Amino acid sequence: MSDRKQELAQAIEAQATLVKQLKADKADKAVLDPAAALLRSLHQELAALDGGAKGKAAKTSFNLKTAKGTKDYNDKDMAIREKVFSTITKVFKKHGAVTIDTPVFELKEILSGKYGEDSKLIYDLADQGGEECSLRYDLTVPFARFLAMNGKEYQNFKRYHIAKVYRRDQPAMTKGRMREFYQCDIDFAGVYDPMIPDAEILRVLVEALTDLDVGKFTVKLNHRKILDGIFEVCGVPEANIRPISSAVDKLDKLPWEDVKKEMTVDKGLEEAVADKIGVYVKLKGGRDLLEKLQQDEELTKNKSASEGLADMALLYDFMDAFGISEKMSFDLSLARGLDYYTGIIYEAVTELSGPPKAKDGAVLKKKKKDDGELDESTVGVGSIAAGGRYDNLVGMFSGTNKKGEPNLKIPCVGVSIGVERVFSILMARQAAADIKSNETEVYVMSVGDSLLKERMEISKELWDADVKASFMFKNKPKLDKQFNACEKERIPFAIIIGKDEIEQGIVRIKDMRSKDESQGGGITVKREDMIATLKEKLASI
Amino acid sequence: MSDRKQELAQAIEAQATLVKQLKADKADKAVLDPAAALLRSLHQELAALDGGAKGKAAKTSFNLKTAKGTKDYNDKDMAIREKVFSTITKVFKKHGAVTIDTPVFELKEILSGKYGEDSKLIYDLADQGGEECSLRYDLTVPFARFLAMNGKEYQNFKRYHIAKVYRRDQPAMTKGRMREFYQCDIDFAGVYDPMIPDAEILRVLVEALTDLDVGKFTVKLNHRKILDGIFEVCGVPEANIRPISSAVDKLDKLPWEDVKKEMTVDKGLEEAVADKIGVYVKLKGGRDLLEKLQQDEELTKNKSASEGLADMALLYDFMDAFGISEKMSFDLSLARGLDYYTGIIYEAVTELSGPPKAKDGAVLKKKKKDDGELDESTVGVGSIAAGGRYDNLVGMFSGTNKKGEPNLKIPCVGVSIGVERVFSILMARQAAADIKSNETEVYVMSVGDSLLKERMEISKELWDADVKASFMFKNKPKLDKQFNACEKERIPFAIIIGKDEIEQGIVRIKDMRSKDESQGGGITVKREDMIATLKEKLASI
Repeated sequence: MSDRKQELAQAIEAQATLVKQLKADKADKAVLDPAAALLRSLHQELAALDGGAKGKAAKTSFNLKTAKGTKDYNDKDMAIREKVFSTITKVFKKHGAVTIDTPVFELKEILSGKYGEDSKLIYDLADQGGEECSLRYDLTVPFARFLAMNGKEYQNFKRYHIAKVYRRDQPAMTKGRMREFYQCDIDFAGVYDPMIPDAEILRVLVEALTDLDVGKFTVKLNHRKILDGIFEVCGVPEANIRPISSAVDKLDKLPWEDVKKEMTVDKGLEEAVADKIGVYVKLKGGRDLLEKLQQDEELTKNKSASEGLADMALLYDFMDAFGISEKMSFDLSLARGLDYYTGIIYEAVTELSGPPKAKDGAVLKKKKKDDGELDESTVGVGSIAAGGRYDNLVGMFSGTNKKGEPNLKIPCVGVSIGVERVFSILMARQAAADIKSNETEVYVMSVGDSLLKERMEISKELWDADVKASFMFKNKPKLDKQFNACEKERIPFAIIIGKDEIEQGIVRIKDMRSKDESQGGGITVKREDMIATLKEKLASI
Repeated sequence: MSDRKQELAQAIEAQATLVKQLKADKADKAVLDPAAALLRSLHQELAALDGGAKGKAAKTSFNLKTAKGTKDYNDKDMAIREKVFSTITKVFKKHGAVTIDTPVFELKEILSGKYGEDSKLIYDLADQGGEECSLRYDLTVPFARFLAMNGKEYQNFKRYHIAKVYRRDQPAMTKGRMREFYQCDIDFAGVYDPMIPDAEILRVLVEALTDLDVGKFTVKLNHRKILDGIFEVCGVPEANIRPISSAVDKLDKLPWEDVKKEMTVDKGLEEAVADKIGVYVKLKGGRDLLEKLQQDEELTKNKSASEGLADMALLYDFMDAFGISEKMSFDLSLARGLDYYTGIIYEAVTELSGPPKAKDGAVLKKKKKDDGELDESTVGVGSIAAGGRYDNLVGMFSGTNKKGEPNLKIPCVGVSIGVERVFSILMARQAAADIKSNETEVYVMSVGDSLLKERMEISKELWDADVKASFMFKNKPKLDKQFNACEKERIPFAIIIGKDEIEQGIVRIKDMRSKDESQGGGITVKREDMIATLKEKLASI
């Protein structure tokens, strides 16, 4: 125990006795309160010291890590991440979108009843007095809440939002499945003619994934109304449609037999109904599938399905005009778990999205390791983007009029790109050593003498002229150490000074990228020409 | 109640009876579990519907707002915010810094014992099983944790981090005092020669505030060792130094009498000691003050104070070389509440930082309104940046060796810019109407006919050529509505097509910024020259 901690411990003991005595004596508040306050201060200081110097015990008891399912991004990761964000932002801005930001936590009631079975994954804040809050689960619900609050000004609104969201899910870190992760969302809000914004959102998605260079990808596409129509036609009781829809949504991860079991055993569906659903949800294709369904009389007689089919026909025309139809796979097994979708739904997948397959081609089932964590060799990266149309979400926040209709109805369509999964794909491709994370242009170094003040004055001149410059934080730096730093940081130019240069009012400029020995100590320029010469050289990089 | 809700309620009743019966019968798990699962599904669906359609009740019971102390940033706010961030980032990069990112929550134990009396302001996550976590309170402690985990690779590290932090403080929103707010931090980590990185950090701060154009500012500067020396010389018991230091730190908000009262009445200091402290902490100045203190024999004989004074002398030399000394105010009342500072400390203030003054020049005391919120007319924006040297924080995380010394010691110095306060200053200056938040360059419109497919095809061509283009999401948009949208969004060019243009294979390009009537419907160009002509015009903006 340090001297100070010993002293504190003694002080605390003495003060505690005093406070106890005062309380026993029912002392006046004006006496008791300050005594108790001092005791608290002493405890706080001791606690602070304990936090810092747990000694040997600290070694074993202190858990030096980030929280489960979260990770740090170092400077190299960030260089990749910023490139990803700027690529996506450029596409979003090309389509007229502007950005907003919302808080990382919302009132708990804002999030409740929006995420179906996934609501259990929401992070809550502790009750420390005041409002009940939760961390946002996605950027869509906060956007709808924003529109409900500000909808008069934002009847027509193209917005994007790049920010972190939170889900208490079982993480698979190397596959980019985390508890804290970034989403890049773009949504078009407003009352427009059918399927026009929907088609442009899909065009945005295709552009973004193409520019991100994630490799071959497909956008699975379906329509909630078609799906609901199929369930109705097959004979699913209306109250059971959402649960059955959740089961269908698992078809990308589970074989049909398991999904059927969930429908019949867990959710009480008749086997014949499940089999009939099975015939539909195994269908996938392009416009050909649409034409096939348009000839299915059972479906076209169903109101919901026939509305969905009309939407899809219009959408295919628009996607042709936008040149993106061939990226789409109309896939009746796509259901999407979230409650709020009302129209088209979609999900982009790459070859790495699905679960790994065994040698015989069978899908490997998700496995847990002994410690309860997921075995990451048995899971895929999942979809890399997803979205859909949600026409009623804003209305859920706006309150209703006398007729029970929402006061404000702003239909929306949007997509969310899950960039963590894109990062995993891109990071796997790039060697960390090849990434220059700093932007420094010039390193100011001295030969022979300290010349600290002179290096500082030259750095000041460079900074004043907006040149990115560094120097070594040493009084007497060795020349080879300065050269090494320059090389390690990949700084293209060095300014070199010695006693002679200072006396003659000159500096040397050396191109550090060149291995040409003939430049020797670099070219010499007059001090007053230093900035101009350097700027010229920098411009030619 | 809607039909569906009625149906659900009936289904739930029936299913609940069944589950109850099965339980009473001690039914087999294989039978009971699916039945219970269905009941849960039904409940969930009903809850989802209830969230969405509370009818009249929703109007009064639903609280449509962001959580206390947090706010949304709309597109105009974001345009300002992004300008602020890019200005700051540019300065940080100019000084060789790279960026990292850490999770928004940390293990609770990482944050404990770092913030002194302010620890009570930390937000905790609810206990939902698993680790205990808290939202980060600043970016400094997570940075130190990062260094402790990765220190071998990052012995010398200039890093910046721009991200949100969380404090359960009493908010004053219009003054930029919020519970969720951005910090822009830059820190230099590594073992260097004395005061060199410290001086550059102060230069970074001065450059950033100058480039941000926040108006006249001053950087208050002090040294923890000088302050500790003063407390020792005045006779403060060692165990009481941090609490007394916290009291001194309130001198910018409270008159000396109140601070003295806190020292003597609340914290048990002798009145004579407090008075002696009072003489010192009222001193402020520049190098002149330093020279005065260097002649104070009582101080120079104190080890701590004399080390601090030597640091300050060196710092003033370096600040002269960097041309920033005249921005500094050496101010002995500056104490900074956080526990982890060990060397120089500083705080930047503007004319708006302090509390408003009454007509007679007296400081207005902070007042609460009837609802318990702060009366914002009685509080200032506070400091707009702050920081200091913290040499032991990384060691607090690294564990200790047999001698009780930290396994890893990485000294650091840094500064944090509180941009919310900078935003309030900048937003107060700018009219919202003057901000163009989108970057759209071209609006594609039709005259007379729908031409939806043609507008889509032209948009596709523009997007393919990286031109930022929009069109109206209507089948048959009216011409004046299209012109209005173009004007409202401040889009500089319009491409106009009609039946004739399509037949002749031409388009019209109109400069929307020009009020020159002579351009009429704009110039006509061949469809195949559209992109080239437009790019030329855009380049000349």
